[in-house]
Amino acid sequence: MVYPAVASYSFALLLFVLVEADTNLNDILFSGDYNFFDLTHPFDENTVYWPGNKQFAFTRKQGLFQKDNSWYAANDFEAGEHGGTHIDAPYHFQVNGKHVGDIPTEKLIVPLIIADVSSKVNDDSDFVLYKHHLDFMLNDNFGKPCVVIFKFGWSKFINDKKKYLGENKTTNFPGLSAEVAEWITSSYKNIIGVGVDTASVDPGSSTDFDAHKILTKSGLYMLENVKLDENVPDYGCTALILPMKIAKGTGAPLRLVAICPKVTPTNF
Amino acid sequence: MVYPAVASYSFALLLFVLVEADTNLNDILFSGDYNFFDLTHPFDENTVYWPGNKQFAFTRKQGLFQKDNSWYAANDFEAGEHGGTHIDAPYHFQVNGKHVGDIPTEKLIVPLIIADVSSKVNDDSDFVLYKHHLDFMLNDNFGKPCVVIFKFGWSKFINDKKKYLGENKTTNFPGLSAEVAEWITSSYKNIIGVGVDTASVDPGSSTDFDAHKILTKSGLYMLENVKLDENVPDYGCTALILPMKIAKGTGAPLRLVAICPKVTPTNF
Repeated sequence: MVYPAVASYSFALLLFVLVEADTNLNDILFSGDYNFFDLTHPFDENTVYWPGNKQFAFTRKQGLFQKDNSWYAANDFEAGEHGGTHIDAPYHFQVNGKHVGDIPTEKLIVPLIIADVSSKVNDDSDFVLYKHHLDFMLNDNFGKPCVVIFKFGWSKFINDKKKYLGENKTTNFPGLSAEVAEWITSSYKNIIGVGVDTASVDPGSSTDFDAHKILTKSGLYMLENVKLDENVPDYGCTALILPMKIAKGTGAPLRLVAICPKVTPTNF
Repeated sequence: MVYPAVASYSFALLLFVLVEADTNLNDILFSGDYNFFDLTHPFDENTVYWPGNKQFAFTRKQGLFQKDNSWYAANDFEAGEHGGTHIDAPYHFQVNGKHVGDIPTEKLIVPLIIADVSSKVNDDSDFVLYKHHLDFMLNDNFGKPCVVIFKFGWSKFINDKKKYLGENKTTNFPGLSAEVAEWITSSYKNIIGVGVDTASVDPGSSTDFDAHKILTKSGLYMLENVKLDENVPDYGCTALILPMKIAKGTGAPLRLVAICPKVTPTNF
């Protein structure tokens, strides 16, 4: 009876060591088992801004060789807070809401769910998302704090501003109905932020911005112009939502990265 | 002989399940076993910029109640690339170096080592870090790709600009010698970025910026004005180095977060 007991003990010890090693975050992250997806459009002269908003621009662009033949380059820049891939702080639409600099890191590093509705949108600029489109979201993944990004399939139009923002003079692109915004804030209190791969959580044709108002009233932040043109898994990813820390910002340029398992886990 | 074998098998199965669960990144990150440290100073009218550089400023600050009594606020802003907590891209000092937008996420999410030299600096603005100060760094933690941030103990002076940048007319604060920069790039090729809790990797009194030139020549980026005023563990953390994605930036505002185990692991 001695040998099996020893063998069992050794095996358990080996597994214990493996478990210990696995709880080192760096060992896990850099094991080769994860993909890092950059969900951020770059800031340059082509970055998408709402019509009439200040575009990203360098105001002083310097690059020159010095007397010792070394190179030196530095720029100043200007931009509106709400262009490109950016965050909307609750203060954008709520006088008592949080500014960008007030949102703690615990609310910026969170599980990510991609709600892919692109097949329902089918490239239609007039599409508005209602509750009946979202039956598939009714599952228990929503039990834990998370951010949901709606994929309208719009990132593929990022270099075609007429299609991306609207083909006529007014803005026109897909977005959330007030019904869906109300449903999220009333039924899914664990959702702390909502993102879209368009220029606004509201449909482009909206003039009352109900989705903005409803979501921010419940303290949610929004992520707009998210770059969703790669095969990011719908579940199992972690979102790193790290905006420029503009203390009193109503919004800010955002660097958004998803860390995703190469094989989607079954327990999320 | 049957029972022990079954028990052993069950025990192994249980541990296997535990290991599987542990490899779900979200379960690990949000287990309560990790701290998220925001190593970023906010951007506002007090943000530290190099003398003569463009300060962070709102150029249009809007906040008003609408006809329906709802609130709306949005701003435009301007800034130099190299103020506050920011990244220096290699292109800052190398004409063939990478711009901010060219640095891939794989080089921005990496293990973090804090080299705490604050007790040697002892608040002395004239301190220059040489190789002989760094004997303790000669250990095998440096075998894997990582970023090293030197803690000079300078973040506590962030609200005292005279002390932080220099008490006389010229800048004066601690920094790296050319010797240390050469040593890093020649002996520790796994170090892909170097950070400091001062306004520059070079000492404030430097006029030739040797550390900048040497580090960027080897393709390293730099992190400056890192906020290091909390007890961040020296080892075992993961750095999230997520700058504003200025495509052709020589540098950019940076959101820097460290994810650290509450208990430092022994295997790093």
